[in-house]
Amino acid sequence: MAIESIHMPTTLDPERRQRIQQALAEASLDAFISVAPSSVLLLTSYWPIMGASVAVATRDGGVHLIAPEDEADLARATSGAELTTYSPGQLDAVLDPVEALATPLLNLLRSLGLSHARLGLELGYLVQPASYLTAVHLRSSVANLLREREPGFHLADATALLDRQKAVKTARELDHIRRACAASAAGFAATESAIQPGARENEVAATLHASFERALPDQPATATDAGFHRWSGHFFCMSGPNSVTASAAYARTRTRRMEPADMVMIHANTSGDGYWTDVTRTYTAPGAPTPELHLNMRAAITEATAAALSSIRPGALARDVDAAARQVMQQHGFGKAFVHGTGHGVGFAAANGNALPRIHPGSPDTLETGMTFNIEPAAYLQGTGGMRHCDVVAVTETGVELLTDF
Amino acid sequence: MAIESIHMPTTLDPERRQRIQQALAEASLDAFISVAPSSVLLLTSYWPIMGASVAVATRDGGVHLIAPEDEADLARATSGAELTTYSPGQLDAVLDPVEALATPLLNLLRSLGLSHARLGLELGYLVQPASYLTAVHLRSSVANLLREREPGFHLADATALLDRQKAVKTARELDHIRRACAASAAGFAATESAIQPGARENEVAATLHASFERALPDQPATATDAGFHRWSGHFFCMSGPNSVTASAAYARTRTRRMEPADMVMIHANTSGDGYWTDVTRTYTAPGAPTPELHLNMRAAITEATAAALSSIRPGALARDVDAAARQVMQQHGFGKAFVHGTGHGVGFAAANGNALPRIHPGSPDTLETGMTFNIEPAAYLQGTGGMRHCDVVAVTETGVELLTDF
Repeated sequence: MAIESIHMPTTLDPERRQRIQQALAEASLDAFISVAPSSVLLLTSYWPIMGASVAVATRDGGVHLIAPEDEADLARATSGAELTTYSPGQLDAVLDPVEALATPLLNLLRSLGLSHARLGLELGYLVQPASYLTAVHLRSSVANLLREREPGFHLADATALLDRQKAVKTARELDHIRRACAASAAGFAATESAIQPGARENEVAATLHASFERALPDQPATATDAGFHRWSGHFFCMSGPNSVTASAAYARTRTRRMEPADMVMIHANTSGDGYWTDVTRTYTAPGAPTPELHLNMRAAITEATAAALSSIRPGALARDVDAAARQVMQQHGFGKAFVHGTGHGVGFAAANGNALPRIHPGSPDTLETGMTFNIEPAAYLQGTGGMRHCDVVAVTETGVELLTDF
Repeated sequence: MAIESIHMPTTLDPERRQRIQQALAEASLDAFISVAPSSVLLLTSYWPIMGASVAVATRDGGVHLIAPEDEADLARATSGAELTTYSPGQLDAVLDPVEALATPLLNLLRSLGLSHARLGLELGYLVQPASYLTAVHLRSSVANLLREREPGFHLADATALLDRQKAVKTARELDHIRRACAASAAGFAATESAIQPGARENEVAATLHASFERALPDQPATATDAGFHRWSGHFFCMSGPNSVTASAAYARTRTRRMEPADMVMIHANTSGDGYWTDVTRTYTAPGAPTPELHLNMRAAITEATAAALSSIRPGALARDVDAAARQVMQQHGFGKAFVHGTGHGVGFAAANGNALPRIHPGSPDTLETGMTFNIEPAAYLQGTGGMRHCDVVAVTETGVELLTDF
C-alpha cells in the first residue's frame, strides 16, 4: 500500500478553518472526523467521489484528507488539506474498504497525538447528495474501527454541529454556489423549444439536460484556475396530472405526452464540485389559451416569492419568511394547495428538507448572513396541475441576494 | 401520522422469496431487516427513492415493506410485499427521519411476533448505487433504534448473506437486467455522429445521454404492465490522455476537445427500477488514419473478451475466467497495461468491484447459473490512450448469455 503526503497550503478556506476551530473549542472536542462526502467537502473543500475518503480537522487548525490514490489529482486540485493517499486495491488484492483505510487513518490520528482525544463523528443518520452513481457508504464502520483499535479515543456525535456549520457559508463557498446556480440557467434556456404539445416528458428532460451539459465552461487545467472539475445535472419534467405529484420529496420524469395548455413543471438540481443548486420553473404548454386559473396561480406565486424575499435579513425568523409567502398564497385562495414548507437549506445538499435553515411554519431557526436556501412557493391542484417557482437565495448583511435570477 | 396496510400478493418473485426463506433457515435467523436500497429491492422488488424505506422478510415467507407515503404508488406498482406507508412529515412537523420510521417499524415487528427474534441486519459498510440525487442514509440508526427500544431482539450482521443473495439472479431479476441492458444501446447509437474532432467530451456525453433518455419506452400505466417506472442513465466520455485515467474506480467526463485519431472511451451505467448495467465501448475519432497500435489493442481486447466468454459456465472458477482474458492480453503484449480485474458482479449495483462474483486473479468465487457480471478487458497506455470493452453477461445452464450484444 503506497502512502504519500503532500502539503498544499494555498487553497484552504481560511474562514471555514477558523469556524471549525471555534466550533471544536466550543464543543470541547479535539477533532472532527468525517467520511460523509458533504462533510468532507465542508472540512477540506474536496468532494469525494467514491465515499472512501476521510477528513480530519483538528482544534489547532490542521486539516487532513485521506483519499484513494485515483482521486488524488482531484483532491489536490480542490483542497489545501494535508493529503494522504492510499490504495483501495486493484490487481494486488481483493480488499475490504474499511481495512484499506485502517492503516492510513490510525497512523494519521496517532501522528497528530490524538490517541486519547475527544473526537466528533457523525454517528446517526445523514442526508447526502449522490457524489457518484455508486459509492461506498462506510456508515458506522469507521467509528467501530476507532472503538476497536484505539480504546483511548472518546467518540462524540457531531452530526448537529456539522449541520450547523453547513448552514452558514463562507465567502468562498458562497462564490461556488453562486457560480453553480448561474450554470443551471443553460438547462432552462432550452425550455421554450422543448415544451411543445406531443413531446414526451422524458424528451423534454433529455433536451434540458443536454443543453446544460453542452454549455459547461471549460474545466480548470490547473489547481489555481477558477471553475469546477466535476459537474452533475439532474433535470426533471412533470406535466399535467404528473405535476400535481411534484409535492413529493422527490421529482420524477415519466413518458407522458404533453397536451396544449398543460402545466409543465421543470425541476433541476445541479452541482459543481459538490456545491448544489435547487431550481424549479413552471410553464404552460403552448397550443391553447392559458387557463385563467394558471394565471391566478402564477400571480400568487410571484407575489409570494416577492413577499418571502423582502422578509429575508439577518436576525429574521425562518418561520416568518414562511409566513410571508404562505399568507400571500392564502389571500389568493391557494393556502391549502401549498402543502410544504417555503424552503430549506441548499448548498451542501440540494433536496434535503431538514437542511438548515428550515423555512417552515414549525421552524425554530433564525437567519444569519451567509445562509443559503431555497424559496419555493407552490400550489398543487388536482385536475389542474402543480405549479412551483423555486429560487436559491443568500442572506446578505442588508437583506437578500437572489442566486437564480433567470 | 397516517399508516395504512395494503396486501398485493400478485407480484412477489416466488423464486426470490423461496431463496430468502432458505437463507434465513440456514443462518438460523428469523428475519432480514434492511434499509439499504439495493437490499430492499432484493427482498421486495421495490427500489426505494429517498432511502427511508425498510424491508422485513421473515422465515415463514412473509415479505413486508415500510415506505414513505409519497412512494406508495411506486411501491405498489413494483412490489408484492405487504405495504405499510408512513408520513415523513410535510407541513405538520419538522420530523426526524428515524423517529418517523420508529412507530411503523416497531409495530410491524411486534405484530409479526419478532420481539425476541434473531434479526439479520447489514451492520457494516455497504456499496450502494444512488437511488436519487439526494437520499437519507439511515446508516446504523435503525439497528440502534432496535437495540434501544426492544431489548429482546438479537441482531446479527447479515451483510455477507445478502451479498451472496444478490449474486445469483432469479429468472425475473435476470429479465429486468436483460431489458435494462437492451435499453442502454440507445445511448451508444449516437456515438458515430457525436464523436468528431473538435467536439468536447461533455458535448459527446450530453448527446449520448439525450439519445438514451429520448428513446425510453413508455412507462407502464398499471402495476401489471411490463416495463420500468424509473430510469437512470449516466454516460461518460474520456478522450485521448483522459481515457488512460479510466482505469480508476470511477469515470469522469471533462471538457477536452477531441483530436483526429484520438482514442475515445464511452462508459455507461444505466438502470431501470434499480437493476443496473455496465457498458463500455472505445472508438477512434475520425479525421486521421487509425494508428496501428489502436488496431492491435482492439484485436487483443476482442480476443480476450471471446476467451473469457468461452470459459464461462456453471462451476467454473471466477479466477480462471480472469486468467483466460489476461493470458490473451499478455500474449499480445498488453499484460502490464491491463491493470484491473476482468469483471465483477453487476445487477443490484453497477460499479461495485467487490460485488460477487469477482472475476479477478485473487478471487475465491465459483460461477453459478444466474450470476450476472461484466467482462471488461482493457489496456491503458500512457501516450496512446485507454481502451476498454465492457459487456454484461449471465451464466446459463450450458454456458453464457451476452446481455449487451450491440
